[in-house]
Amino acid sequence: MAFTVSLETDTNRYTGPFTVGKTLVYKHIITNMGNVYNPNTGFFTAPVKGVYDFNFYVYGGGGPIGIGAYLRRNREKLVMAFTGGDDHSINASNGVSVLLEVGDVVDIYLPANHRIIDNGNHHSTFRGHLLFQV
Amino acid sequence: MAFTVSLETDTNRYTGPFTVGKTLVYKHIITNMGNVYNPNTGFFTAPVKGVYDFNFYVYGGGGPIGIGAYLRRNREKLVMAFTGGDDHSINASNGVSVLLEVGDVVDIYLPANHRIIDNGNHHSTFRGHLLFQV
Amino acid sequence: MAFTVSLETDTNRYTGPFTVGKTLVYKHIITNMGNVYNPNTGFFTAPVKGVYDFNFYVYGGGGPIGIGAYLRRNREKLVMAFTGGDDHSINASNGVSVLLEVGDVVDIYLPANHRIIDNGNHHSTFRGHLLFQV
Repeated sequence: MAFTVSLETDTNRYTGPFTVGKTLVYKHIITNMGNVYNPNTGFFTAPVKGVYDFNFYVYGGGGPIGIGAYLRRNREKLVMAFTGGDDHSINASNGVSVLLEVGDVVDIYLPANHRIIDNGNHHSTFRGHLLFQV
Repeated sequence: MAFTVSLETDTNRYTGPFTVGKTLVYKHIITNMGNVYNPNTGFFTAPVKGVYDFNFYVYGGGGPIGIGAYLRRNREKLVMAFTGGDDHSINASNGVSVLLEVGDVVDIYLPANHRIIDNGNHHSTFRGHLLFQV
Repeated sequence: MAFTVSLETDTNRYTGPFTVGKTLVYKHIITNMGNVYNPNTGFFTAPVKGVYDFNFYVYGGGGPIGIGAYLRRNREKLVMAFTGGDDHSINASNGVSVLLEVGDVVDIYLPANHRIIDNGNHHSTFRGHLLFQV
């Protein structure tokens, strides 16, 4: 299993800022072997117990609003990718290798008052795969 | 199989900007198990059908020229790493897990009017490996 | 085996700048399957001969001091993640897939006169896993 998704298909668009945080729902599916990523909810669900590897990239710019997101396991924040808003376009990234039980979920969570841009160039991506079963 | 390459061996040098896009030919080979990366052409070629994972990092700065590149599968752009030119040095990255048929090629493509810097510290790297056969 | 670590557990704190370089000792352990990362020394030790994959992320800002670190194999610098100090917060990253013999060590090395910030959001992370035995 492996998936790679990007926030937008073609339109250049901001997601956020919102007054409350929300799970990012990535619309553009590049890879979804095993249907482990749900493009309706934004959640990855672990099909087997094991250690999984995830990467995510956030992109933005054009002003003072922070660009960032958390990676969460079962809605618990594990790591953050963040960069302060800048006049030019800028990118931040992070990732994790983490043990998941069957049915555990991972999502990318946009905090309140942050925003991310994506477009047909596919800057703001999220991907994961199984490293090994436990 | 797995490879890791960096754009320059030692010299601090810009690649670009050019008036047309071109494949980046990474000169410094850190790892090339299976000889899957061709340092003459800049292309990775898939030895078996499977899902592969790729990461790339672009670095630059020192003025208003955009720093960025696309990852392409068979010359189709999949994702971009980009940051606007800035006075200080700055880094952007992206990656993809993607299904490849035997003989499919992946490269990092510098678009027209962009540039990337690298040197003996090896900032601007590209790497990939097989996740699993299909 | 797989590990993911972050520089700080909760406190927002700079590491560096120092007048000499030093290995970063990541305090917050997210994953350490196989106890391959030593949180006392900051060194990863290869348990078997094989090709391993590593990612690292450095974060900082708030002034002109450079934000960056090297990934080293047996204290030899392989790649760097770096961004010039900026007024706002900013992130850089890099990684490598590399052949290790049993007992080879990998660490993240903060050069002299650089600094990195981390806090409870876990921006400055380091992770690795075995790709395949050789």
